[in-house]
Amino acid sequence: MTDARRALARKRDGHALDEDEIRAIVLGYAREQVPDYVASAFLMAAFIRGLDTDETVAMTRAMVDSGITMPLEGVDRPKVDKHSTGGVADGVTLVFAPVAAALGLAVAKLSGRGLGHTGGTLDKLESIPGFRTDLDAETFERQVNEVGCAIAAQSADLVPADGALYALRDATETVASVPLIAASVMSKKLAVGSDLILLDVKAGSGAFMKTVEDAEALAEACAGLARGWGRACRVAVTDMAQPLGDAVGNALDVAEAVEVLRGDRPGRLTDLTVELVAAAQESLLGISRAEGADRARRAIEGGEALEAFRRLVDAQGGDPRVADDPWSVLPRAPVVTPLHPARSGTLAAVDAEAIGRAAAGLGAGRAKKGDPIDPAVGIVLRAKIGDVLDRDEPVGEVHARDASAAAAAAEAVHDALTTRDQRIEAPPLVYGWRE
Amino acid sequence: MTDARRALARKRDGHALDEDEIRAIVLGYAREQVPDYVASAFLMAAFIRGLDTDETVAMTRAMVDSGITMPLEGVDRPKVDKHSTGGVADGVTLVFAPVAAALGLAVAKLSGRGLGHTGGTLDKLESIPGFRTDLDAETFERQVNEVGCAIAAQSADLVPADGALYALRDATETVASVPLIAASVMSKKLAVGSDLILLDVKAGSGAFMKTVEDAEALAEACAGLARGWGRACRVAVTDMAQPLGDAVGNALDVAEAVEVLRGDRPGRLTDLTVELVAAAQESLLGISRAEGADRARRAIEGGEALEAFRRLVDAQGGDPRVADDPWSVLPRAPVVTPLHPARSGTLAAVDAEAIGRAAAGLGAGRAKKGDPIDPAVGIVLRAKIGDVLDRDEPVGEVHARDASAAAAAAEAVHDALTTRDQRIEAPPLVYGWRE
Repeated sequence: MTDARRALARKRDGHALDEDEIRAIVLGYAREQVPDYVASAFLMAAFIRGLDTDETVAMTRAMVDSGITMPLEGVDRPKVDKHSTGGVADGVTLVFAPVAAALGLAVAKLSGRGLGHTGGTLDKLESIPGFRTDLDAETFERQVNEVGCAIAAQSADLVPADGALYALRDATETVASVPLIAASVMSKKLAVGSDLILLDVKAGSGAFMKTVEDAEALAEACAGLARGWGRACRVAVTDMAQPLGDAVGNALDVAEAVEVLRGDRPGRLTDLTVELVAAAQESLLGISRAEGADRARRAIEGGEALEAFRRLVDAQGGDPRVADDPWSVLPRAPVVTPLHPARSGTLAAVDAEAIGRAAAGLGAGRAKKGDPIDPAVGIVLRAKIGDVLDRDEPVGEVHARDASAAAAAAEAVHDALTTRDQRIEAPPLVYGWRE
Repeated sequence: MTDARRALARKRDGHALDEDEIRAIVLGYAREQVPDYVASAFLMAAFIRGLDTDETVAMTRAMVDSGITMPLEGVDRPKVDKHSTGGVADGVTLVFAPVAAALGLAVAKLSGRGLGHTGGTLDKLESIPGFRTDLDAETFERQVNEVGCAIAAQSADLVPADGALYALRDATETVASVPLIAASVMSKKLAVGSDLILLDVKAGSGAFMKTVEDAEALAEACAGLARGWGRACRVAVTDMAQPLGDAVGNALDVAEAVEVLRGDRPGRLTDLTVELVAAAQESLLGISRAEGADRARRAIEGGEALEAFRRLVDAQGGDPRVADDPWSVLPRAPVVTPLHPARSGTLAAVDAEAIGRAAAGLGAGRAKKGDPIDPAVGIVLRAKIGDVLDRDEPVGEVHARDASAAAAAAEAVHDALTTRDQRIEAPPLVYGWRE
């Protein structure tokens, strides 16, 4: 406790802490030697005073050292760990993993079951009947070798300090700190063996970072952490001014992913996945970005990506027919009503977070940890910024348990769409890269 | 909790909080509705961002509202509440109360049993056999009316938020904040009815505030709080660059107080008490400072002050013979050894805190709440800054349980005294007044 107290006093006064001081707080808290009221005072001091790169590296190292690591040394292929900071209709992982696997990469994806307007990757996959995400380390590693990808629930023993610190930050208004977010995100990536960490930091109305500037600061902090660890990392700052794909739900996302993997759904979700797979190939296989993008599109058109998805689902106990005819196996909502815009005009802005909340209101997301998820419900919104909308033409539909829930969601989507009469440019898909 | 969370986030971002936000934290914590990890994060944010006068007034009001108050409306005389921020050999209260009572004022003194290098006022008085400090409110008020003074333990129901917040600050490195200290000190004064709050803020090596500048900032914050409440308050910033009196112990302090009250011990303790009593008479009786000082000295020389002390002791169950012959009733330490300076020369500096710690090491103070106190032990140091010392002449003595404890204390006092060969000016006794 002496070191933790000294660290607390020094951070309070704006000094940079050394590694021992950071470890005294982080490991002390994780091991229940430092009480929560001391840790929360430290988090507030760190929030206000900031943490420099060395301090953030030390914090991340202490967090990783709080639990087990997964070196994945038995995986032969070049390993990429892709992670998004979270957004609405961000189903990239479901597409990225099979496409990258089809191109000779290994995607070993451990996912947390955090909060969110909609379910996470695990919840989406679990809408496929039989799909299991609780793989033990050995099974997980074997599947990565055999199939090229696996997507499983992160063990509670992996970076336990992160869960403890995040819960305390959530309770003490200390979440929105760039170094604390970066340490949280990167600790879980750095605890797992990979040859490349590929981060997608979202910016806009549907993301935690509402501005590109804030997202760039987080991207730089994450890239700086990877440099401090000597790990290869590429960070894209990408648009979340509107839902990325069309589907905001769980089974709806899986169905959309299958359409993208079939090549039947061109658009921003397809384009971003291709860009990320190209970046991974450039780093790991030495293939140019243009050639990598071509290879990704050919894997989709040739069916190899869909086949990798089928093998992924099959390996994890899910019904592989989802890859051929999603709605033959996925749960459907009883009420499906069309969505119309409030007025005709060009779609100028979307409150993506409001759409996420509307989907959560239908039952697609969690208000608190452990809440059940309704895999069938959600929102499909096909309109993107710059599209010209006609109020008589539907822009999507609501999938709901009952008519009143559907009406409430439709109302919320109405309010979340802003149309204008002039021409509007679509926002960029990728704002930039850091590494 | 919603208001407390909002208050936490707004203080984190450096905003001034309104009264409702402050109350949500302070009363929520006192009523165990706000968890300690939220309160400690708030205290850290308040420490770093500061609290303005309005916020500090609101915080103090919430603290007072957390418990009972003592209006003391049945007391007829003009009431003065004298309080010191704490120092070494600061026995002013023992002398001030009877002198003020002898001059027609009422001193209703409630004292906490905090930590300190030496015991507090209650511990000192309890070295008098039979002396009781656990007076109920009615007995306390009656004694103030009849005797003119009473010194009792503060009820746990008086400002309970202060005890709770102080313990949390002590555990989270958030003690040394001027507005938080001011709110703590003043809440206990404002909860008690008095016509004048007379504060003595100590500055120097034996005080919490080591510099006059810091002490002046605290004095100004306390005076500002009293203004915000519309209560009369005078604040002296006084010297604690050396022990104020000569005795650092408990029974030793009582014996010294009796000597001062008899007029047998001129010096800084007498002089400061006279100045404080003069300031109280100026405010409450409209008597000039010079005339008030004269009256105080005459009350000492004429025996009225000693008589008031005798009545105070008698009223609270103590053996009144202490006023005639202190050592006939006070406990004595078995080992008394003379103290010599390490070298001859002019006394230039005293580490008063080290002398306090040495006395605590003998058993005169507490390391933690509830520790027992040895009333008999302590240090008497008669030398003051500017005095010319001869290493062959004792400057005081150590009163100890055994020879090894005495030797350790003597060694510590040696190290705490700095002598020089040139002439040294005595530091001022009072640096200034605020009101």
